[in-house]
Amino acid sequence: MNNRIKPVPAGTVTTPGGFLAGATDTGLKAKGILDLGVLFSEVPCTAAGVFTTNKIKAAPVSLCQRHLNERRAQAIVVNSGCANACTGERGLEDAAEVARLAARKLGIPPEDVLVASTGQIGKSLPVERLREGIQRLTLSPLGGHELAKAIMTTDTFAKEIAVRVRGENHEFIIGGIAKGAGMIHPELATMLCFLTTDAAVGADFLQAALKKAVDASFNMITIDGDTSPNDTVILLANGLAGIGAEAEAFQIALERVCIYLARCVARDGEGATKLIEVRVEGAHTDAEARLAARTIVGSPLVKAAVHGGDPNWGRIIAALGRSGAEVVESRIDLYLDNLCLMKGGLPLEFDEGEAKAMLSLAEVPIRVCLNLSQGEATAWGCDLSEEYVTINSEYMT
Amino acid sequence: MNNRIKPVPAGTVTTPGGFLAGATDTGLKAKGILDLGVLFSEVPCTAAGVFTTNKIKAAPVSLCQRHLNERRAQAIVVNSGCANACTGERGLEDAAEVARLAARKLGIPPEDVLVASTGQIGKSLPVERLREGIQRLTLSPLGGHELAKAIMTTDTFAKEIAVRVRGENHEFIIGGIAKGAGMIHPELATMLCFLTTDAAVGADFLQAALKKAVDASFNMITIDGDTSPNDTVILLANGLAGIGAEAEAFQIALERVCIYLARCVARDGEGATKLIEVRVEGAHTDAEARLAARTIVGSPLVKAAVHGGDPNWGRIIAALGRSGAEVVESRIDLYLDNLCLMKGGLPLEFDEGEAKAMLSLAEVPIRVCLNLSQGEATAWGCDLSEEYVTINSEYMT
Repeated sequence: MNNRIKPVPAGTVTTPGGFLAGATDTGLKAKGILDLGVLFSEVPCTAAGVFTTNKIKAAPVSLCQRHLNERRAQAIVVNSGCANACTGERGLEDAAEVARLAARKLGIPPEDVLVASTGQIGKSLPVERLREGIQRLTLSPLGGHELAKAIMTTDTFAKEIAVRVRGENHEFIIGGIAKGAGMIHPELATMLCFLTTDAAVGADFLQAALKKAVDASFNMITIDGDTSPNDTVILLANGLAGIGAEAEAFQIALERVCIYLARCVARDGEGATKLIEVRVEGAHTDAEARLAARTIVGSPLVKAAVHGGDPNWGRIIAALGRSGAEVVESRIDLYLDNLCLMKGGLPLEFDEGEAKAMLSLAEVPIRVCLNLSQGEATAWGCDLSEEYVTINSEYMT
Repeated sequence: MNNRIKPVPAGTVTTPGGFLAGATDTGLKAKGILDLGVLFSEVPCTAAGVFTTNKIKAAPVSLCQRHLNERRAQAIVVNSGCANACTGERGLEDAAEVARLAARKLGIPPEDVLVASTGQIGKSLPVERLREGIQRLTLSPLGGHELAKAIMTTDTFAKEIAVRVRGENHEFIIGGIAKGAGMIHPELATMLCFLTTDAAVGADFLQAALKKAVDASFNMITIDGDTSPNDTVILLANGLAGIGAEAEAFQIALERVCIYLARCVARDGEGATKLIEVRVEGAHTDAEARLAARTIVGSPLVKAAVHGGDPNWGRIIAALGRSGAEVVESRIDLYLDNLCLMKGGLPLEFDEGEAKAMLSLAEVPIRVCLNLSQGEATAWGCDLSEEYVTINSEYMT
């Protein structure tokens, strides 16, 4: 296998062949702000999805799960500004109606339309306004960036990427957009991600590949430990690139796209000023390494220390100790980038000025070597700032 | 059984018969601030302990666990300002030396001395200064309040209580002090609690009663989800009240003392302005109710909303949904005190002014009825303020 994977300049979710998108405003957010969008493939796609594990599921998530029974879809319609969660039977009917409206506009069966929503919980969708919005939409192969903007809430930048994979026997593109921790009215942040590819990929493999990529990316980021009833990752593969993609190259490229978008989401967490990357090596298993990395990157005390540029390594070790991963204190090495803070479980004298300088950068890499076995994992998060509290303590009303 | 349980005015850890305490300053904290103390019983006690579940254990915790093998102790020596954690072999030797120094001063075997420390991680104990401090100490039956102050770090008030139990066949007192989430140098907060009783109680029952009381109190509070390598709860029973205590009355009184101290710790969380109480009823099991209550009270989004006085119930439901407890969305009722915000899974119209007024009080009671079965639990926490972030992002150096 000899594959090159390269980012496509200005790549987005419509960069793979045969995908179109468009967005408009319906007044769900402030006037003139994009809040409704459609992603469309010229031909039916093999489809895969990964959804929130929250037991309170929003109506669009339930609808997607039903429509994905056939592992096939051709369009996604998405709105921001209203989550359509905790809305009972009416919420399910509204989501189905939105799918029907988009289907009619696009001339495809309603079962081939997936629906996603993000925004305030407990409010019903203004279906009439969405109907008008869907009518107004114009779709274009250049519409991916508009769609990336339409799903933003308090995200401070649009999150999008596409990579091209060139091998001996195949060439294809994977594109994607995501939104992260943000809200219009202060409300639970929803993570949405839509991925596209023109690779020809079977449904079983597509779902397995997506699950694996999400486990290595979106499941390894944490802003504040809360999950939303609306979290959704969808991958559409329309096969227009012809000949089947090599499984390994596809998986690697998909993970690269997902990790890029996940890092963007972590970096853009509410109130965040820094990306924190925690790598745990030498754990008994990958699962224990994941547990340790996620616990450290999610610790409010670690996050606050990084925010203040404080080389307070005791908090990292304490979070590690409570993570549930097996550790032997006398074997632990701890690094801030390449600066060793602790060796064999004992603190080292280190240059505090150097440590503080590293903590002042926009990306803070923490590395923990457990020196027990081969398990490893990386997790991403962000610092905890006063701004996070301010954003989330304002009135919803 | 006909027992009356009443708080003792100005009650503290030395209120039960035969207990003495004293405190002094050794310069571990600022000059003149109490940072070293001893609790002593005139006779040997049956002893029970519950310790941190963090896999990184501080040296004093390891020492206590060894000394408690015999389920017996007569004194506790405690310092604040230095945690003696991540200090390797030397840390264990230092803790043992502190126990020996106190034993010599008190004229008892070193194995009957328990040791506790709280403060910065990774610094060694200044044993010489502790030796001088222990020499200087004078103990008195009125010394409990001084001891409560000596274990404070950034606690804003001393946490202490004693209750007297009067039944037909017995009369005894349970007293206790605790410290919570605070630090001198910004460092991991340690929870310490020392409990005393003059009741005559067997060792097996004492340990079981303590575990049960801790599960209902200290294990149901959360400040920020982090646990310390030093967390310690110790209960000493010297039997000086004579005749054995009735098990049920003892358990009820012990839980009352522990819950009071736990609520004090939650209320005094770093930067906290309010106590949040979350009661979950109607869960399948008590264990699921505990999970749900602790998840809700620990959610940063819920904590920030309470801080801002924002009746943002969607966050409570979302935290409930991710807690792992079984829920049926259409059966959930949600109350803020007695104000119903959600009934049968659907939002109710409620008086927002009334809700905001309730959220402006110093205690915010949230009640979730799952209407599935009989499981119930209560958890306590505090709001998340900008001040929490400020406290925890300052330099350790």
